Amino acid sequence: MSDSIDFYFDFSSPYSYFAANKIDEITEANDRTVNWKPILLGPVFEATGGSSPIGFSVKGPYSVHDCERMARFMNVQWKMPEKFPIFSVAAARAFYWVDDTDPDQARLLAKSLFHRLFGEGEDITSGEAVADVAGALHIDREELLAAIADPAIKQRVKDETDTAIELGVFGAPFFIVDGEGFWGSDRMWMVKKWLQRGGW
Amino acid sequence: MSDSIDFYFDFSSPYSYFAANKIDEITEANDRTVNWKPILLGPVFEATGGSSPIGFSVKGPYSVHDCERMARFMNVQWKMPEKFPIFSVAAARAFYWVDDTDPDQARLLAKSLFHRLFGEGEDITSGEAVADVAGALHIDREELLAAIADPAIKQRVKDETDTAIELGVFGAPFFIVDGEGFWGSDRMWMVKKWLQRGGW
Repeated sequence: MSDSIDFYFDFSSPYSYFAANKIDEITEANDRTVNWKPILLGPVFEATGGSSPIGFSVKGPYSVHDCERMARFMNVQWKMPEKFPIFSVAAARAFYWVDDTDPDQARLLAKSLFHRLFGEGEDITSGEAVADVAGALHIDREELLAAIADPAIKQRVKDETDTAIELGVFGAPFFIVDGEGFWGSDRMWMVKKWLQRGGW
Repeated sequence: MSDSIDFYFDFSSPYSYFAANKIDEITEANDRTVNWKPILLGPVFEATGGSSPIGFSVKGPYSVHDCERMARFMNVQWKMPEKFPIFSVAAARAFYWVDDTDPDQARLLAKSLFHRLFGEGEDITSGEAVADVAGALHIDREELLAAIADPAIKQRVKDETDTAIELGVFGAPFFIVDGEGFWGSDRMWMVKKWLQRGGW
């Protein structure tokens, strides 16, 4: 077993959703584990001068159409949320709280949250909405709601986002594999090749 | 034989170079012809509010590295030109002049110009540099140099760029297939799927 892959994503990013649907297939076939790392793209864009394609006049409608088409071609369920982009901090905090005790459960939670948002088009901004999704996985609602208000967990999301920026992350999804950065769900074929070839 | 595909590109775009290396394989397997259409990204970005990733502080170095890695993983020759981005209008004019009488030869010229720039890292900004590449394909140097100074050919490049903008092109490479737009060399797998499935 070689080193783990860091998978940076924002719950509010549609291309992160596509990546989350595909990452296991690529990494399991190549005997790698993955550290799922939700971050907040807002501070990332602020630090790096980036922006979401959704906010850009011509690319906005194109991006929405691209997502719909990609979902169909990838056989992934898709419903564009009415409320978009969303503020994804509650989801990120819930993830890290679960991840500290049970990473497998945290990954399941991440996939369920993504599915709720982009597969069913339902909002996951509020702590209540996140707790509903977590509850279906038998995660304690009240404990989760307390956790996402905990200053230590709040700080954790900030720290993970800061670390991502320091490591050169400027968008999402972003993969760091053996120190090598790959940006975008459309670079996952290169991540796969990297793993198969063991580098360059 | 179904309708042709429009392949919009700028000779100064590295991802257009990668697309030019791959487009035949995708379209020939699916019995489609391709209209190669060089345009100028400068006016496209001006009209649509876009910009090159190269100009963006963090994405710049990433993009250069991404190109090098992509070339290696695609088995395409690559040398980052010292002078970049270049002003690609002479190359585009030469292309259309040849294309009007011999589209096959024009495609060969396009591939040779791309190879000169991104495979060998040599500048192709000047008419002389374009004529050197064309000369190796037995295209008459003097006629070509006269053609790229011809007001009708100058206007042609402007018109093709304007048409592209009207059709929704906002970057390069950009493919229009059965009225459907696909942006980026990283969407060519979707172009392929579209052709195989005959649409959605």
